[in-house]
Amino acid sequence: MNTIGHIFRLTTFGESHGTAIGGIIDGCPSQLKLDFDFIDSELQRRRTAQSATSSQRLEPDKIEWLSGLLDGVTLGTPIAFMVRNEDCKPEDYEALKDVYRPSHADFTYEQKYGIRDWRGGGRASARTTLPIVVAGAIAKQILIEKDIFVRAETVFMGNAEQARMEGDTVGGIVECRITGVPAGLGEPMFGEFSAELAHAMFSIPAVKGFEVGDGFALAKMKGSEANDTFINKDAGLRDARRESCPESRVNITTLTNHSGGIQGGITNGNDVVFRVAFKPIPSIAKPQQTVNRAGESREIAIGGRHDVCALPRALVLVEALAAMTVADMMMLQQAHN
Amino acid sequence: MNTIGHIFRLTTFGESHGTAIGGIIDGCPSQLKLDFDFIDSELQRRRTAQSATSSQRLEPDKIEWLSGLLDGVTLGTPIAFMVRNEDCKPEDYEALKDVYRPSHADFTYEQKYGIRDWRGGGRASARTTLPIVVAGAIAKQILIEKDIFVRAETVFMGNAEQARMEGDTVGGIVECRITGVPAGLGEPMFGEFSAELAHAMFSIPAVKGFEVGDGFALAKMKGSEANDTFINKDAGLRDARRESCPESRVNITTLTNHSGGIQGGITNGNDVVFRVAFKPIPSIAKPQQTVNRAGESREIAIGGRHDVCALPRALVLVEALAAMTVADMMMLQQAHN
Amino acid sequence: MNTIGHIFRLTTFGESHGTAIGGIIDGCPSQLKLDFDFIDSELQRRRTAQSATSSQRLEPDKIEWLSGLLDGVTLGTPIAFMVRNEDCKPEDYEALKDVYRPSHADFTYEQKYGIRDWRGGGRASARTTLPIVVAGAIAKQILIEKDIFVRAETVFMGNAEQARMEGDTVGGIVECRITGVPAGLGEPMFGEFSAELAHAMFSIPAVKGFEVGDGFALAKMKGSEANDTFINKDAGLRDARRESCPESRVNITTLTNHSGGIQGGITNGNDVVFRVAFKPIPSIAKPQQTVNRAGESREIAIGGRHDVCALPRALVLVEALAAMTVADMMMLQQAHN
Amino acid sequence: MNTIGHIFRLTTFGESHGTAIGGIIDGCPSQLKLDFDFIDSELQRRRTAQSATSSQRLEPDKIEWLSGLLDGVTLGTPIAFMVRNEDCKPEDYEALKDVYRPSHADFTYEQKYGIRDWRGGGRASARTTLPIVVAGAIAKQILIEKDIFVRAETVFMGNAEQARMEGDTVGGIVECRITGVPAGLGEPMFGEFSAELAHAMFSIPAVKGFEVGDGFALAKMKGSEANDTFINKDAGLRDARRESCPESRVNITTLTNHSGGIQGGITNGNDVVFRVAFKPIPSIAKPQQTVNRAGESREIAIGGRHDVCALPRALVLVEALAAMTVADMMMLQQAHN
Repeated sequence: MNTIGHIFRLTTFGESHGTAIGGIIDGCPSQLKLDFDFIDSELQRRRTAQSATSSQRLEPDKIEWLSGLLDGVTLGTPIAFMVRNEDCKPEDYEALKDVYRPSHADFTYEQKYGIRDWRGGGRASARTTLPIVVAGAIAKQILIEKDIFVRAETVFMGNAEQARMEGDTVGGIVECRITGVPAGLGEPMFGEFSAELAHAMFSIPAVKGFEVGDGFALAKMKGSEANDTFINKDAGLRDARRESCPESRVNITTLTNHSGGIQGGITNGNDVVFRVAFKPIPSIAKPQQTVNRAGESREIAIGGRHDVCALPRALVLVEALAAMTVADMMMLQQAHN
Repeated sequence: MNTIGHIFRLTTFGESHGTAIGGIIDGCPSQLKLDFDFIDSELQRRRTAQSATSSQRLEPDKIEWLSGLLDGVTLGTPIAFMVRNEDCKPEDYEALKDVYRPSHADFTYEQKYGIRDWRGGGRASARTTLPIVVAGAIAKQILIEKDIFVRAETVFMGNAEQARMEGDTVGGIVECRITGVPAGLGEPMFGEFSAELAHAMFSIPAVKGFEVGDGFALAKMKGSEANDTFINKDAGLRDARRESCPESRVNITTLTNHSGGIQGGITNGNDVVFRVAFKPIPSIAKPQQTVNRAGESREIAIGGRHDVCALPRALVLVEALAAMTVADMMMLQQAHN
Repeated sequence: MNTIGHIFRLTTFGESHGTAIGGIIDGCPSQLKLDFDFIDSELQRRRTAQSATSSQRLEPDKIEWLSGLLDGVTLGTPIAFMVRNEDCKPEDYEALKDVYRPSHADFTYEQKYGIRDWRGGGRASARTTLPIVVAGAIAKQILIEKDIFVRAETVFMGNAEQARMEGDTVGGIVECRITGVPAGLGEPMFGEFSAELAHAMFSIPAVKGFEVGDGFALAKMKGSEANDTFINKDAGLRDARRESCPESRVNITTLTNHSGGIQGGITNGNDVVFRVAFKPIPSIAKPQQTVNRAGESREIAIGGRHDVCALPRALVLVEALAAMTVADMMMLQQAHN
Repeated sequence: MNTIGHIFRLTTFGESHGTAIGGIIDGCPSQLKLDFDFIDSELQRRRTAQSATSSQRLEPDKIEWLSGLLDGVTLGTPIAFMVRNEDCKPEDYEALKDVYRPSHADFTYEQKYGIRDWRGGGRASARTTLPIVVAGAIAKQILIEKDIFVRAETVFMGNAEQARMEGDTVGGIVECRITGVPAGLGEPMFGEFSAELAHAMFSIPAVKGFEVGDGFALAKMKGSEANDTFINKDAGLRDARRESCPESRVNITTLTNHSGGIQGGITNGNDVVFRVAFKPIPSIAKPQQTVNRAGESREIAIGGRHDVCALPRALVLVEALAAMTVADMMMLQQAHN
């Protein structure tokens, strides 16, 4: 269950303060010359210590490629990679060893596994999303060759600088747009494009909401307002041209895009648009009430190095998982043709 | 991809106006005496023709059990079942054979498969959700034995009766609450409980949004507002009792439930709460512009028998998929213990 | 686990004396006009009561197609089908209800599920292989369009007529040859073509051995004897022709085929050849010692209607699963290209 | 497809002369204290350069543990590990870069991926089996706690020393016995215990045959010879004892074990016994005819460092995959209970 994807698959490993973080990409097409500079630039977008509101943990995030490549070209075999954890400060967490930080995964991991790695959040740390960025960058490279582009932006974010001064944190909303997606991706009934996207997005820590197209706002519309009219893009073209180009496919799209590019769970060729809601980072410096493992009351003020908001760094994660989903569903669609 | 679940798995089949609709449930525990009355009552909740705002198609929805049972008791082998489509009126759809109904799956299915069953929406019809209700009813039976209950209710719905008069449709929002879920369900990193739920919910036609706990509202909170304080339920109990009952487990929960019972993707033992946004039914009687397969403009007014809102009937679907997800994740968790 | 295949997937259901036997084929390409006569002729090869040495149970095996088709053409949606069980004689088995037939699945099913359908072997009956033949026939249709042919034959079979007279049964060995398989099928490391084939073949009741190419005999050869020399099929052609046809691919194959067309787990373009060993049917009329559920000794002589040998009927099963494997691995390979 | 297992899952990576070889074990139970000495001793069994007939490549095979552990105890999160390739001599293979070694995977990998890592066989090298031994050792640890033991031995092997002098290689047959397997493991119809075992064994390089119990020999027996009589182990015990111990389960097993502990695809509680046939190592020093990529004839004598027989080193691989299969099927069975 640390694997995502059907054909283009990523399996990840690693805890925040363990030896290394990494992953295996299985099912990547062969003969692809990896663009390592692009991968690094994507990782750079995810890195901490870039601004006053992000965690001050400083990791070089130097990727070591372990397999699947010959002179930087993919072999079709599994691409394994890792990054060592170097700037670890487990002592920051020593005091929290037996205490459940509110709205963190401490309690749930312990309930699930009977044990947890208390150093920096262990497997539940945001640090473990690094491999997603690597796989996402490779997926983007595959998509760019087909003129498919993925771009996320912040559409809402709380007042981070003020929150930081108050020892508090804020949440936000990310909107992502995928252009150039071919029509026909997504597998009904239980592999719909929107379901696959939703699944992928909820793999990002702190995500609590997901909507496609106009999403929750659609619930308040009438059908006549929400429906997307189909149009023929070539309708204005001279008949002469159409006659001279008999093989050209009819070029249909929708005038509006309330559906966010997905109808009946399948892409319709228009831009795929979705939004993701992030809760505030639960690690706050303000004192909080909680309990320890024995059930005794404790007051904690979370030190360590933490972001004030997930958002600036999460954009690349949203894009990465979106790109992986498109690549995977494209490959699945190819299998049937 | 017409299969959902890891251990408790449902594979469905059927088109709206084909011979039959049905499914196979694989991985259901053996020696369970099915409560057929309960299954029927759940199907009744999904049935059409129950009110002025739902479709007037009248199907008896009489389930035929094909396998997996001996005297009504599960054998552990696949449980196959089906319902024949009887009240079919493909002629209602004849006129729409070559036309793409706005915000329906006509266009996308054709793009995907190069062919589509135009009779009543084919595979994309809401009728194909029937097997989900059957599997959900069985999952509920499994859960009820463990005191886990799933209940969905409408928290917002447009003005249906007015919309019907205007030849229009409306959307709505469903909230679902699961009580009694044990802590520790959900599989990080890519099988988180919230991801599995999201995936399941987007399998329901017309769903465009999903949020857990306070969801999108969390994006606008501060950490100090959003965090759920852990408390010890037994904190007020006399020490004497705790001493006399040394083996009793510490009884921890959260005071608030902004997280919706899921933290770090894993259930924390509090109620799981989530909301699902439904767009308005796209089949409206009002005239709409669209194009046909050749790309020519067409005006259509959709006849046939359609709901004005997905909601009243969708409640049981939301519950069914939630129950299936809980049952499946419970069984997955058991595998590790 | 009643599902086989990655892209071209079959899920089966049914017990010997239950209501029906059937399956769902998911992932079949759309726009394929099914050849129902061919499917029937394949089923005919599997049917009982065709000779003195096969079971005298007479089932019409009339397939009812439930979904996935429009005018006999595949829609890309799940193809469900079933056959009703009509010539059931559960009373034949009443006496065996609490007794474990030697080398049958009675005991193991009961150990696994705590319950078993004692009527005719239930799920473990050879009757449950019928859906495999249907899926196999469709897979063959897909392959034939690409000039891939699958053919199994009996290479060894015990003396059936004599065994029948003695109230005994016999086993046998089937060899299957697949011609026209393109090179490059099979997914290392754990989805090798030979592993997938082996997995598929062991899904057939009574199979106890499987070997590829020279199989067990290879264990006794030296490398210099076992290795297959690569040759260029076009080596003898005039240079002139090769020059005039510059785009022709080099046409490499192996001189011998000890490898059975699979090297490193991947097809090499030569014929895929494998053998499958069937144990004797365990249902013998001769008296046998066994125990009942309470552990008490019992002597039984198995009545009912049984084959003397699995083989004549199993040929079509071996072919069907081989065809499904090739179709599935071809589609998986397509996904990567 | 570089992943094996349903619950206890191993994903491997690495090429013979790449940076590293390794894997990720997902689904391992938490709170298991790994026995690193045992893992090392298992790796030692697989290592080369141990005898005159095995490859003289000398790798320290020092495992680096990357994740999933806290003080040597499993966390329930993915356990990643790797071993660096240090004693690489790609120059040994430079001459073979464009030549297809007979009965190797050179040609098939190139057909599949359009590219191959020619250095030491790349992904198809026996070196890539190392992660299997690690996962197998951990699986064995899980099994040993339940008194389940896996033991493989050589039952046939060609004359290795003579073959080595002749520049040739030999094959062999391994028999494996698993004691203590509980009855009820294996999932009909397509996840039968024998099918899962067969699948696993064909993941080992050079495996060309697999049989369970008496295997191919069963094809030549009569039912009356092949059937395993059920007996009650406690039949000889005094009634007194049985009365005083009313809850004791009936203790049934089979007198003979022609079935190899598997009936109807499910374990019956008797020892699971199977055999695996290995072809001779295809790398022989003797001159061989072959072709190069351009289809031109070439004579090659394979230098490099190679085993004369797969067998002595393969024993631990057979055991490892058998142990992984048992552990996985046990966990799958637990999920249903």
